[in-house]
Amino acid sequence: MGNLRWLTAGESHGPALVATLEGLPAGVPVTTDLVADALARRRLGYGRGARMKFERDEVTFLGGVRHGLTQGSPVAIMVGNTEWPKWETVMSADPVDPEVLAAQARNAALTRPRPGHADLAGMQKYGFDEARPILERASARETAARVALGAVAKAFLERVAGIRIVSHVVEFGAAKAPAGVFPGPDDTARLDADPVRCFDPEASAAMVTEVDDAQKAGDTLGGVVEVLAYGLPPGLGSHVHWDRRLDSRLAGALMGIQAIKGVELGDGFELARVRGSKAHDEIVNTADGARRTSHRSGGVEGGMSTGEVLRVRAAMKPIATVPRALATFDVRTGEPAQAHHQRSDVAAVPASGIVAEAMVALVLADLVTEKFGGDSVAETARNVRGYLDALEIR
Amino acid sequence: MGNLRWLTAGESHGPALVATLEGLPAGVPVTTDLVADALARRRLGYGRGARMKFERDEVTFLGGVRHGLTQGSPVAIMVGNTEWPKWETVMSADPVDPEVLAAQARNAALTRPRPGHADLAGMQKYGFDEARPILERASARETAARVALGAVAKAFLERVAGIRIVSHVVEFGAAKAPAGVFPGPDDTARLDADPVRCFDPEASAAMVTEVDDAQKAGDTLGGVVEVLAYGLPPGLGSHVHWDRRLDSRLAGALMGIQAIKGVELGDGFELARVRGSKAHDEIVNTADGARRTSHRSGGVEGGMSTGEVLRVRAAMKPIATVPRALATFDVRTGEPAQAHHQRSDVAAVPASGIVAEAMVALVLADLVTEKFGGDSVAETARNVRGYLDALEIR
Amino acid sequence: MGNLRWLTAGESHGPALVATLEGLPAGVPVTTDLVADALARRRLGYGRGARMKFERDEVTFLGGVRHGLTQGSPVAIMVGNTEWPKWETVMSADPVDPEVLAAQARNAALTRPRPGHADLAGMQKYGFDEARPILERASARETAARVALGAVAKAFLERVAGIRIVSHVVEFGAAKAPAGVFPGPDDTARLDADPVRCFDPEASAAMVTEVDDAQKAGDTLGGVVEVLAYGLPPGLGSHVHWDRRLDSRLAGALMGIQAIKGVELGDGFELARVRGSKAHDEIVNTADGARRTSHRSGGVEGGMSTGEVLRVRAAMKPIATVPRALATFDVRTGEPAQAHHQRSDVAAVPASGIVAEAMVALVLADLVTEKFGGDSVAETARNVRGYLDALEIR
Amino acid sequence: MGNLRWLTAGESHGPALVATLEGLPAGVPVTTDLVADALARRRLGYGRGARMKFERDEVTFLGGVRHGLTQGSPVAIMVGNTEWPKWETVMSADPVDPEVLAAQARNAALTRPRPGHADLAGMQKYGFDEARPILERASARETAARVALGAVAKAFLERVAGIRIVSHVVEFGAAKAPAGVFPGPDDTARLDADPVRCFDPEASAAMVTEVDDAQKAGDTLGGVVEVLAYGLPPGLGSHVHWDRRLDSRLAGALMGIQAIKGVELGDGFELARVRGSKAHDEIVNTADGARRTSHRSGGVEGGMSTGEVLRVRAAMKPIATVPRALATFDVRTGEPAQAHHQRSDVAAVPASGIVAEAMVALVLADLVTEKFGGDSVAETARNVRGYLDALEIR
Repeated sequence: MGNLRWLTAGESHGPALVATLEGLPAGVPVTTDLVADALARRRLGYGRGARMKFERDEVTFLGGVRHGLTQGSPVAIMVGNTEWPKWETVMSADPVDPEVLAAQARNAALTRPRPGHADLAGMQKYGFDEARPILERASARETAARVALGAVAKAFLERVAGIRIVSHVVEFGAAKAPAGVFPGPDDTARLDADPVRCFDPEASAAMVTEVDDAQKAGDTLGGVVEVLAYGLPPGLGSHVHWDRRLDSRLAGALMGIQAIKGVELGDGFELARVRGSKAHDEIVNTADGARRTSHRSGGVEGGMSTGEVLRVRAAMKPIATVPRALATFDVRTGEPAQAHHQRSDVAAVPASGIVAEAMVALVLADLVTEKFGGDSVAETARNVRGYLDALEIR
Repeated sequence: MGNLRWLTAGESHGPALVATLEGLPAGVPVTTDLVADALARRRLGYGRGARMKFERDEVTFLGGVRHGLTQGSPVAIMVGNTEWPKWETVMSADPVDPEVLAAQARNAALTRPRPGHADLAGMQKYGFDEARPILERASARETAARVALGAVAKAFLERVAGIRIVSHVVEFGAAKAPAGVFPGPDDTARLDADPVRCFDPEASAAMVTEVDDAQKAGDTLGGVVEVLAYGLPPGLGSHVHWDRRLDSRLAGALMGIQAIKGVELGDGFELARVRGSKAHDEIVNTADGARRTSHRSGGVEGGMSTGEVLRVRAAMKPIATVPRALATFDVRTGEPAQAHHQRSDVAAVPASGIVAEAMVALVLADLVTEKFGGDSVAETARNVRGYLDALEIR
Repeated sequence: MGNLRWLTAGESHGPALVATLEGLPAGVPVTTDLVADALARRRLGYGRGARMKFERDEVTFLGGVRHGLTQGSPVAIMVGNTEWPKWETVMSADPVDPEVLAAQARNAALTRPRPGHADLAGMQKYGFDEARPILERASARETAARVALGAVAKAFLERVAGIRIVSHVVEFGAAKAPAGVFPGPDDTARLDADPVRCFDPEASAAMVTEVDDAQKAGDTLGGVVEVLAYGLPPGLGSHVHWDRRLDSRLAGALMGIQAIKGVELGDGFELARVRGSKAHDEIVNTADGARRTSHRSGGVEGGMSTGEVLRVRAAMKPIATVPRALATFDVRTGEPAQAHHQRSDVAAVPASGIVAEAMVALVLADLVTEKFGGDSVAETARNVRGYLDALEIR
Repeated sequence: MGNLRWLTAGESHGPALVATLEGLPAGVPVTTDLVADALARRRLGYGRGARMKFERDEVTFLGGVRHGLTQGSPVAIMVGNTEWPKWETVMSADPVDPEVLAAQARNAALTRPRPGHADLAGMQKYGFDEARPILERASARETAARVALGAVAKAFLERVAGIRIVSHVVEFGAAKAPAGVFPGPDDTARLDADPVRCFDPEASAAMVTEVDDAQKAGDTLGGVVEVLAYGLPPGLGSHVHWDRRLDSRLAGALMGIQAIKGVELGDGFELARVRGSKAHDEIVNTADGARRTSHRSGGVEGGMSTGEVLRVRAAMKPIATVPRALATFDVRTGEPAQAHHQRSDVAAVPASGIVAEAMVALVLADLVTEKFGGDSVAETARNVRGYLDALEIR
């Protein structure tokens, strides 16, 4: 189906993450700064610990890009871990003298699996007696690799088809943005400047208060983010087989982000609660071609993009490492215990929107290559234009 | 990744649907009746047109099964179309004399694309000037092929791992079942006997009223179904890569059903609205091993099954062919028009639960083959047992 | 990667074979006769038993084609088994009364696995105590499903890119066609008329003699077939990743045919035996653009089509069911035995060329969709033309 | 199907190659030295330029391994380029001042595409006007990434199933090793000590003479390597679908190595030239179970491993960069020219055996995960053992 394949690797406290994207046409304009800027956006957001804000990820292209342009070969991006020196014994790939290891507090076995995390099921699946090997990979740190590739995918989409992606926070704890109001493709800078990446100033203030209250209560929060894509041609995805559907692929991609528990297209679950006469987008013929009179479907009908703005939402559960730790047990002793506590953020909802943008970009890039083919941006762009120009029904 | 591949083919009014499932171990007990019974369940439910209830699909195994057992080779199931004689000219694979065709009312070009359907985007994508070639494949008729394969997948899951799947309707229009109450693995017969497949009698009555009211109003309804899977071992799916996650694959599979607009695991979107201290399932060590004290996560943590009951919900939009037809335009003339009206159901929510069961079964069967391998049920079952017996943390 | 997926199903003596091809653009001209003619070619060739020559396979499109054109939906083709009535008890999908079965000689357990066949390894892998379930699927009868899809793939290739495929027999037992002489795209009818599908009349006569001699000796023969594809644009396949290479995919596809033990591109193994100065195709700039002065590479450099004729060969081992049966043992008793004898052909080399054509067509069709995308033949053809027109280096 | 996915990235003169292997169970013993030693073997062999022999590749695990054991997460290996400082301007990912670039001789446009290389077809496909972006990725340097992953795959195979792989050179130019003699699993050290990795001392001497003669003549050589795998259980791969076949996957993998033009299993092309009575391996029942009396099939029947030694050969064409350069033209001027000359090896046949071992190991590891599943070596090994112990036909 789509022409792209991608893999990420790396542990949270390992030397680096590395992400490889195979199948991208040649000629996509990308630079180290483009990727580093995308990674900086992932660190944004009210509710994160102080540490997130000051660091900048070290980005190195290992392959696939030369003089600012992709080469058609696999694009590989390494994102360095600035804290590696503190971890190089504990996370060493090669064996380490057991006495040296025993002296490292950081190496202590994590035997109290945390509720809401991969810890327990991961230990069972992979046969480990402590959680370190699981949490190192299950950590949201891994999403940096996706954001790096997402930056490349966005550059491709914009260059070959003028597609642009924007996200915003629509719910944060109990605070909600007003329904039906959403940002345009040029609003990203404004959203990035908002502490919670909310498009509505009042709702933003309420969300900040939610975070403050949760922090005081020693608790954590989740929320809902919405991703919009502008400029899609009609006909990305297909109705002919379930796994070609644009909505299916978006749902799989967004549910594949750590801590996401729900995904919906357009008005989503609300559509199930209204009658049919109020649930669909009627079609009118305009000077600009066929247009829908509303955006309920989220820009997807029959598993295909309609040409209207794409809208997809993801629900993130609250951070599972709650300051007042949750109950678990110690797998060595079998005795009840408090879960390990590994970090201090109240919420990562604004950041999850950045990750969701990346996943949407990767899905769309894959579908663009699937429909339009092409081994260079010139070729893919020509094929996109040729299709749009030849549409008998605009 | 998983060992299963499957494709469906066939048009709504073509001679037959055909579904092929490749990669299933040998020795799974299946019969024509097993599949036909599953297809009969898909026709259930208050709100369907009369026709659905009287027919029984014609099921023929074309390959992969002998004397009631799968053979390790691809399983192919043909589901005949009892109305084919009425359609064999209009849907003929071979060319037909244009004059003969012109005389068939059924062959009239469908030039008024229906809102909420694949019609318009499909015509644009595939270059057709009428909707017949699109709606023939986009129709929910195709889900019969999935239900047929789902019956085979269920037989496999039960035989090798004791996994059992049940679904129920939790919302139907504005009527809701009480939260947190869900059927067990033995409740399928009782649910199938309920007109709306709802587990709560009062809610069922309210749902029936919803349907009646919508019908009187010349309108249609959607709803929400929940699928539960009992008996999963811990560790299906994985945190190590996004597309290995059980939740990602379930979301892609359920969103890949016609008319589904939202998917959530466990408490889903509601989890985004509560604080972390109330959002996770605490862990206790019991005589039966590690257990969670609640079911908020839906039985999935870190993208893996926890061993608790799996709970996943899908939101279906109302049927898009609304009796009081929606506005569109005629693509030949460009003039405003009423959408074509192709069928008369008020709702297909109960049936969508049956389709959702099939998709969940196919995802789980794939993940069982991925984790446990095996080319015969004896081998796969032995590997499942060996894993469970060797678990150090139960 | 490529946009096509395909599965075949069905047993040798089951009710039918069925083949599904998913991902093909709309608008490819195909008919029942086109496929039936392709299947008739598979029955050609000196050395086959008498039965092969008189039957014609029953072809039914179950989906994906309407009025002579593909619809963009999955194409499903059923190839009926005219002998099914004789086998419907023995190969029944549903359970059969054991007494009825016991009375059928055809149902006798095949407990003497045949050397050179899948029998023994298949019984071990899938846990069967007799060979019937293995040989039913391992049989070359399955290749009819591939040939059916290959006919569709060829129609696509010719329609969107003018690509044409031809095959011939270059070795048959000890007889060889002269090196470096190969048919053009218009020579298929002439080749089909030759008893052994050899392009050289003298070599053809020698091959016929080989078959006659083997038959007299109660023995069987293998041979080597060559497939050529004319009209490929440069740049199908890629050097950027091993599994994108055209040569890799061709090798996997051809080695995936029953009884094939070797595959080579261009001069293949002979290239390993000459020096570099004689092993490559020098490049000249002509009025028609860049051309190679020889065809040693088989039209593939760096895993990509060069634009020259593609040449790939496959070596078929002799039929393993030798009239003077080979030694084996009986798995029930453990005693030495003669292998079961299931058919009486001396050789199937000419037919294997037809199957090889189909596999090459399916690989090329996949690569054309990968490079050029497109959901209709108009779109794919436009993209092919756009690429060729824009080539700076012709 | 199989559970493994892997991608390589990186250019020949870029900062590094990086290889990612996803899906490997936890607990495989690997170290930096294990991989570095494998890479050192890739540099072996008479006929290489002097440079190859002195360097040692810099290996860094970026993910997936901790304290000498895989973690179940993706294994990522970076192989540094010791010459990167010389290339960091020419191969910079970020844009470089054009004047700085213009001053670099290394950056001169390569406008004379080399026969026998990816240069010309790659430039056409990806839209480049010089060959640098193509040859950087098409270079055999990329095989270092495969060898790195192959070392990990071998460690997995040996640990879970006792499978061991060995390769040797069977033809080198016109010199051939005696037929039917092949090394055992313990012969690797002896082979690595031979200048041409030939198992037969006389043939080795003749091969060395071939290289010397070619070097004197300003020419290059190819050859044939054979890979053997010992300890396979019966039943890896399958007859049920063409792309599950062990022989198909091996052929695709080996033909996917740069410069390979032919692949054969067992006696391969020779089998096509003998009669059936001499072409198959008869079966005998021994105290050790079912055994074949010969090795003609290469240990593969019906697309499955038989349990006998696997034998597969690959034919490598001579190095295409011939010292007496081949004829081509300059794409800027259209005038005839001599091809660019990029390196000075006479032959890389011994090294190609090491790469072939890696590809075979990756295919077999994938098939082992497919048949046996497992997320830890303990689990996979238990499943392998359980299968072998339960075999009714040994």
